[in-house]
Amino acid sequence: MNTSRTARIIDVDVIDVRFPTSREFDGSDAMNPDPDYSAAYVVLRTNADEQMEGHAFTFTIGRGNDVQAAAIATLRERLVGLSVDAVCADPGSVSHTLVSDSQLRWLGPEKGVMHMAIDAVVNAVWDLAAKRAGKPMWKFLADADPEWLADQIDYRYIQDALTRDDAVALLTKGKDDAADREAQLLAQGYPAYMTSPGWLGYSDEKVVRLSQQAVADGFTQIKLKVGADLADDIRRLRAARTAVGPGIRIAVDANQRWSIAEAIEWTGALADAGPYWIEEPTSPDDILGHAAVRKAVAPVKVATGEHVHNRIVFKQLLQCGAIDILQIDAARVGGVNENLAILLLAAKFGVPVCPHAGGVGLCELVQHLSMFDFVALSGTTENRVIEYVDHLHEHFVDPVVIVRGHYSAPSRPGFSAQMHPGSIAVHRYPDGTFWASDQAVPKEMRKN
Amino acid sequence: MNTSRTARIIDVDVIDVRFPTSREFDGSDAMNPDPDYSAAYVVLRTNADEQMEGHAFTFTIGRGNDVQAAAIATLRERLVGLSVDAVCADPGSVSHTLVSDSQLRWLGPEKGVMHMAIDAVVNAVWDLAAKRAGKPMWKFLADADPEWLADQIDYRYIQDALTRDDAVALLTKGKDDAADREAQLLAQGYPAYMTSPGWLGYSDEKVVRLSQQAVADGFTQIKLKVGADLADDIRRLRAARTAVGPGIRIAVDANQRWSIAEAIEWTGALADAGPYWIEEPTSPDDILGHAAVRKAVAPVKVATGEHVHNRIVFKQLLQCGAIDILQIDAARVGGVNENLAILLLAAKFGVPVCPHAGGVGLCELVQHLSMFDFVALSGTTENRVIEYVDHLHEHFVDPVVIVRGHYSAPSRPGFSAQMHPGSIAVHRYPDGTFWASDQAVPKEMRKN
Repeated sequence: MNTSRTARIIDVDVIDVRFPTSREFDGSDAMNPDPDYSAAYVVLRTNADEQMEGHAFTFTIGRGNDVQAAAIATLRERLVGLSVDAVCADPGSVSHTLVSDSQLRWLGPEKGVMHMAIDAVVNAVWDLAAKRAGKPMWKFLADADPEWLADQIDYRYIQDALTRDDAVALLTKGKDDAADREAQLLAQGYPAYMTSPGWLGYSDEKVVRLSQQAVADGFTQIKLKVGADLADDIRRLRAARTAVGPGIRIAVDANQRWSIAEAIEWTGALADAGPYWIEEPTSPDDILGHAAVRKAVAPVKVATGEHVHNRIVFKQLLQCGAIDILQIDAARVGGVNENLAILLLAAKFGVPVCPHAGGVGLCELVQHLSMFDFVALSGTTENRVIEYVDHLHEHFVDPVVIVRGHYSAPSRPGFSAQMHPGSIAVHRYPDGTFWASDQAVPKEMRKN
Repeated sequence: MNTSRTARIIDVDVIDVRFPTSREFDGSDAMNPDPDYSAAYVVLRTNADEQMEGHAFTFTIGRGNDVQAAAIATLRERLVGLSVDAVCADPGSVSHTLVSDSQLRWLGPEKGVMHMAIDAVVNAVWDLAAKRAGKPMWKFLADADPEWLADQIDYRYIQDALTRDDAVALLTKGKDDAADREAQLLAQGYPAYMTSPGWLGYSDEKVVRLSQQAVADGFTQIKLKVGADLADDIRRLRAARTAVGPGIRIAVDANQRWSIAEAIEWTGALADAGPYWIEEPTSPDDILGHAAVRKAVAPVKVATGEHVHNRIVFKQLLQCGAIDILQIDAARVGGVNENLAILLLAAKFGVPVCPHAGGVGLCELVQHLSMFDFVALSGTTENRVIEYVDHLHEHFVDPVVIVRGHYSAPSRPGFSAQMHPGSIAVHRYPDGTFWASDQAVPKEMRKN
């Protein structure tokens, strides 16, 4: 066994893990009718000691998870042999090195499959760093020195909106009364909202029942999927509003289904049932389009971000006042360090962050970022909620814990990204036990 | 042998082809110091007859070409079995089907590795369609019915700037005097500009010599790479200006090297040598940033596009007046059909299109799009030039022909994308004869 002084990354495991969620219509929306929630899962193996591994993944919805895995595999040679001390002392440098690789950069830059692959390995480094510090990620970040944290960020292309000096100032200010907020977080958790009632494939009866259940469980906000059929959306939203009463926020989510004109018209048609925000009204690339929608649909708020591919697009959404709510995703941009840049941009522009979550493991990851934001950056949970979906948490070693509509603060060191080995053995694609036996059944005889 | 009525796509070959260009510093710029020009190359095999194949590729600069190939391979099952008649009658539908795949869409949407993979297979379908019509691509497009061509385009997310009615009107107007312009094209070709003099790795002497040679060869515009060192750039640009005189346009290209402030400052410092355009001053994602740069550096023009990932971003660049010159790339967006949308947007906004080319095979492809634009859309070559770089054309069956600084119109049916089988056998990675023998040599003993 090596001492940590000589510990190195000795291998990178890349595993294609898929869950057959499409067969129960969990997660269906107007753009994604049949998602199979999947993870291109990464384990950084080190010779530090047998527990010292970095775990992370990027999330996909099925087909293409193999492409993600192939992209991650190309990064293996860049990681093997690196000093564990060095990468944990400066995880942002790993992101910067990979993002700047001149040949790989052509495949983006900083977007799509290659950026998500970088995200996965960089987050595994962050997981390793937090584990070595013996802290859950939220506390690892909240306890960090502002200068060090500011140095983790790549300011390229965002300096016109956020400089390193800005970051240090915001993070230093975030330290004021952080101990009080940490105590509050540990006592009360971080507010969540509930998406499970509103999948498009669900019947009205199921929407009403699950909406009422969510309120009974302590949630003060739910979300419904919209965008496939206007009459259906109006009926479902009214039914949910009647079921939960006027005091509960109901967000609606179009998953990029609309043009600008459609977004404005459709949101207007839903307005009498009082939607709180309209999420992803149109293409995540359409910055000016979101600005136009926001202007037209106020006081309904505009939210987006789960498909926004990097800090540069978020910067512009903020610069032109295109969004009321910024939705980070833990597994799309270039790692925790790029999400730090985005949280800092949001803080500077005074826009609340309400993370995207759900899928498989996204709740586990992103809770840490919001908890850090509360304790040591924005300092508030006002108008801030983390998405919650009650699927697939059982596959994680450190699953999220929801109490009375709040995420409880994780206490286990790391980023909560680790899956149970047994879950991987069953769901590894295509040779895990589930998929192998599934393939053995003729297609027309498979469940659903 | 099947009749065309029953002809189907029976297989999709995907080949990783790489050229060791980094060893001679060809193509070096401030962001890409060591590109190995590469193609993730696609052959659609059909049972129509043995000549009837669709060829295309997406371009990368080395590492990651295997990821592109893997992404293309995932599309194979979506293509095999399709009717050749059906896909050739409606190539845009193939693009639309693949772009809309709900699971693959998560990996973008419409950006990065997966979008480039779709581009490759869709362009192979367009190649097949033009070959079956017995026409080079430019003429296949120029002869097409405006209604049919307008139907090839996906208007999703651009309808606020370009409707199908707009497209039909522009394409119908483009038919006026098209025969005259076709005759002009066949007689004179399409104007080119020359980038080969200006790679960053070249000595001043080589820059001067190649610049003078370009002018002697009939080019009226050249381009220099900038952005690594300001003093070097000033010296090289002045040397080139002295060498070519005041009547030749010299574009400069920063390849995304700068922040907004740096772009404005650096371009200002170069202004006395009269650069015609500044290309890629900053991130291709920074729409608002380009608008700010353009406002500050006028009368130097702002050009971008080779890394702009789809029509939605181009739409916004045009909507907010961020660019003077729009640079399409033939192998990044979702196929000929998406480039049609971009050409139509440019025509509607009255912005000239000067395509990105070079790499391997990009000149061969993109010339067709500009020639179509001249004959049957914008109707002019004023302030329009196609980039030309004199590398690697010998690997193509139908290489570009440059005469007195103009691209000659191809006459061979198809998209000019086909490589010589012998070139593929040598440069297939890693098992082609060049790479296999290269790998057999110890790394420290390889050339350069």
